[in-house]
Amino acid sequence: MATTLDGAKIVSTVEKHPFSDRVVISSIVGRPDGGACLAGQRVRVGGWVKTGREQGKGLFAFLEVSDGSCSANLQVIVDAAVADLGQLVPTGTSVSVEGLLQIPPEGTKQKIELRVEKVLDVGTVDPAKYPIPKTKLTLEFLRDRIHFRPRTNAIAAVARIRNALAYATHTFFHDHGFLYIHTPIITTSDCEGAGEMFQVTTLISGAEKIEKELIKNPPPSEADVEAAKAVVKEKGEALTILKFDKANEEAITTSVGELTKAKENLAKLEERSKLKPEIPQKDGKIDYAQDFFARQAFLTVSGQLQVETYACAVSNVYTFGPTFRAEHSHTSRHLAEFWMVEPEIAFADIKDDMNCAEAYVKFMCQWLLDKCLDDMEFMAKNYDKSCIDRLRMACSTPFQRISYTEAVELLEEAVKEGKNFENKVEWGIDLASEHERFLTEVKFQKPVIVYNYPKGIKAFYMRVNDDLKTVAAMDVLVPKVGELIGGSQREERYDIIRSRIEGMGLPLEPYEWYLDLRRFGTVKHSGFGLGFERMILFATGMDNIRDVIPFPRYPGRADL
Amino acid sequence: MATTLDGAKIVSTVEKHPFSDRVVISSIVGRPDGGACLAGQRVRVGGWVKTGREQGKGLFAFLEVSDGSCSANLQVIVDAAVADLGQLVPTGTSVSVEGLLQIPPEGTKQKIELRVEKVLDVGTVDPAKYPIPKTKLTLEFLRDRIHFRPRTNAIAAVARIRNALAYATHTFFHDHGFLYIHTPIITTSDCEGAGEMFQVTTLISGAEKIEKELIKNPPPSEADVEAAKAVVKEKGEALTILKFDKANEEAITTSVGELTKAKENLAKLEERSKLKPEIPQKDGKIDYAQDFFARQAFLTVSGQLQVETYACAVSNVYTFGPTFRAEHSHTSRHLAEFWMVEPEIAFADIKDDMNCAEAYVKFMCQWLLDKCLDDMEFMAKNYDKSCIDRLRMACSTPFQRISYTEAVELLEEAVKEGKNFENKVEWGIDLASEHERFLTEVKFQKPVIVYNYPKGIKAFYMRVNDDLKTVAAMDVLVPKVGELIGGSQREERYDIIRSRIEGMGLPLEPYEWYLDLRRFGTVKHSGFGLGFERMILFATGMDNIRDVIPFPRYPGRADL
Repeated sequence: MATTLDGAKIVSTVEKHPFSDRVVISSIVGRPDGGACLAGQRVRVGGWVKTGREQGKGLFAFLEVSDGSCSANLQVIVDAAVADLGQLVPTGTSVSVEGLLQIPPEGTKQKIELRVEKVLDVGTVDPAKYPIPKTKLTLEFLRDRIHFRPRTNAIAAVARIRNALAYATHTFFHDHGFLYIHTPIITTSDCEGAGEMFQVTTLISGAEKIEKELIKNPPPSEADVEAAKAVVKEKGEALTILKFDKANEEAITTSVGELTKAKENLAKLEERSKLKPEIPQKDGKIDYAQDFFARQAFLTVSGQLQVETYACAVSNVYTFGPTFRAEHSHTSRHLAEFWMVEPEIAFADIKDDMNCAEAYVKFMCQWLLDKCLDDMEFMAKNYDKSCIDRLRMACSTPFQRISYTEAVELLEEAVKEGKNFENKVEWGIDLASEHERFLTEVKFQKPVIVYNYPKGIKAFYMRVNDDLKTVAAMDVLVPKVGELIGGSQREERYDIIRSRIEGMGLPLEPYEWYLDLRRFGTVKHSGFGLGFERMILFATGMDNIRDVIPFPRYPGRADL
Repeated sequence: MATTLDGAKIVSTVEKHPFSDRVVISSIVGRPDGGACLAGQRVRVGGWVKTGREQGKGLFAFLEVSDGSCSANLQVIVDAAVADLGQLVPTGTSVSVEGLLQIPPEGTKQKIELRVEKVLDVGTVDPAKYPIPKTKLTLEFLRDRIHFRPRTNAIAAVARIRNALAYATHTFFHDHGFLYIHTPIITTSDCEGAGEMFQVTTLISGAEKIEKELIKNPPPSEADVEAAKAVVKEKGEALTILKFDKANEEAITTSVGELTKAKENLAKLEERSKLKPEIPQKDGKIDYAQDFFARQAFLTVSGQLQVETYACAVSNVYTFGPTFRAEHSHTSRHLAEFWMVEPEIAFADIKDDMNCAEAYVKFMCQWLLDKCLDDMEFMAKNYDKSCIDRLRMACSTPFQRISYTEAVELLEEAVKEGKNFENKVEWGIDLASEHERFLTEVKFQKPVIVYNYPKGIKAFYMRVNDDLKTVAAMDVLVPKVGELIGGSQREERYDIIRSRIEGMGLPLEPYEWYLDLRRFGTVKHSGFGLGFERMILFATGMDNIRDVIPFPRYPGRADL
């Protein structure tokens, strides 16, 4: 047993990971005392060399080893007698080593180091060929080496923060009695009747399969078919003659058999001659009845409409899954594939919705401060000095709540005072990103919730307010990112939502199931969507959304 | 304060949900005493009427109300003086009511009931039109009314169990230091070089957009183009004459302007005349350079290969996301869209992998026994008598571990003893479902892990054993379901995995990034995939996989 400075006893043994033969490095260096209490213990660790250098004229080597479990490395010392040091020191080398933990000499940063007695495994690296040999590389450079970038400190820290935010999300909703519902990825509904969608199909691969088959097995020519027809005719005539001649039963049976065979052969040839390596058409249109789902199918743009079927049955629900936009957007804020969190609450109005959104964002920020401070400090040091302060502020300050009308007034005031916006400000416009950023970053300098937007700029499912001009929509705006959350109270009144759909020129038929929720046992309900990658941008201070998702998809790129 | 029978004090207040104006029903009836301690408290609740009946000659009504928070209903009593009872009693009606909790008369099942003083909101139901008016309906019938089926006891119980298993999954891996990695849904890699994949494209919608545009704005005819060409010729000739005549500068400038305009018009017409509502082709093939990702893209069949890039950087990772198969399979065990959990562990061999799989399954089973017993009891009563015993057995019994070779010997013995299998048993075959079920249900009557399968029937990435005949693969088989988990130690040796890819006739180029993981700092690592819906089948005893996912997708069907 060791004791800390204030005398509290701390556990001084460290156990191997239950599903590996090694001790996880965070369980050594992640201790309150930096691992000093473990001096004298024999451990086996595994990881990748961040930096390595031979010292003492090649008598020993220092390796900074990381296994990704925390932002800190473990310092490892290997004597030349134990292993070929030249093989160990290149960045990226994997090592599995066993040895004794010891207190390093005074004056070093580390509180503990590992003196290696046995090298169990080495995965070598040829530094001349290693795609990411240096430790400090631009994020842009790394985007072209996507399979190696998690080996960098920055992308690994983002991965740990992303993981923490995902678990915080599940914990928050679980603790508040929400059920996690897996809404469909492939859908035949279009949430807003708007967004550009990816199509999901097997028609093209079906046509390509036929093409390949026909190359391997060429289709019969017209001559082949004609020849087969001639055989049928011939066999038919032969049978007629036999019957006319009253031939014996055996001869007739044989002849019938031959005719049947010839007919079967002809049918087969005719069918194969019709095979075309084309997408099936009917009446000049693609015949989706022949597609996998017997109709046109797409990748979802939102799980909201579908999850409402569960909210209108089990009250408190949320989704957390991938969503898609086939927009040719090349900005640092958009992805073709991104993750959304969408809670939906029955018996809740727009105010409950705002309360939930604010509590959820605060919960995530507090979670990172409590459980990811090391990684946050790494981000603050290397990418965004203010990111920790931003989390603290979001946790401790009530979000400013203003109506859309108030927001427009504030923006108009700012214009009068000389602020220049690219987009004109007047009641009825959709707030542009510059307006949102101004409100949250300049005017209030904290998260802002804008609610009650003009009806004309919002989706049909948002509840019409008594003024008949606005809907009970709300957006949460945060510094650094702008819009983080968009939500609304849903229109639960059958007649009104029906006329809203019609008023927008949308067909009713695809929404009949959605209208059913209002026809039978309708309830007041509300929900919102949070862009998960935007939350990570807000937390980490990273600038480009392509760096906060493991495998970014955007126009022209879907690596791996 | 109230006390339980054994004298322990229990809290006797209940609070409204923080994001709603009501008390959640599970926080009343889900108490150890069934809610009796809350008698006398005024609460507001909301939910849907499961069954309702008028009594006392229409003087009052009993409603069984559920808000989906637990399997139990709250009994609600409404006097005719308070509301129109006829409107309240139809199944499916939503109600928001306020009143006093009271102890029901002796002899009733309930421990608490709500006497309503105020009806705040009603969402009516016309019983003649309500799609699911009865309480007991077949699961098949409900599959055609997918937006209403979560209002049934069975589908709601499955939703709560599914939610519990999802949170248990995240908790298990979080507690063991695994990072949750979001692997891509849209992919340009094919995990096994085998599975039928859905294609993701914008080429068809692009062609359809052009088609619509051309209908609105018909393309120029050949005559239009010829006429435009004639204008260009005419204007050109006019200019030549002017120049020949040495006309004044102004006249020449005007003429040049007219010629330029005529040329521009011709170019525009020629471009529009080339617009075709067709999928772009090049050299007789579809031109995927023009597709959204500039190459052919698909829905993922597994996140394993991609998540290995993170395992080979941050050690312990897992994915939990949707995966897809475009197989025309109409069985009760297959879906086109389903969820998989795929952990991947660096510095772990096949034994660690089996330990992880067993611990994970046991953890989930114990979680359901601890936190979902009400719902499990509902399932046991209505669908599978043995489902709770099965969970208890899986928690408490070590899984049987046998090699593939032993498994085949046991099956051969069974055949000798008279057991009839449809599929022949001999070393080298892939075990059929009937073999797997025999091993786990008949022979061992508990979960079985079969490991070290013949190389020839397994994927290229599985590690070749020293016998050169088998690979370090393992499957977890469980009663009721058969294969629940498939996993392996991954081949980490560059030369061997390279020759395995080649030996299977697969092209190397698409796997270069995967080979890179073995070229640079390679490590021993292992992982597996668990079919999440199969785990729910195992837990609930449901027979059809279409009933344990909220929105099932299968050939011909993708409702909503």
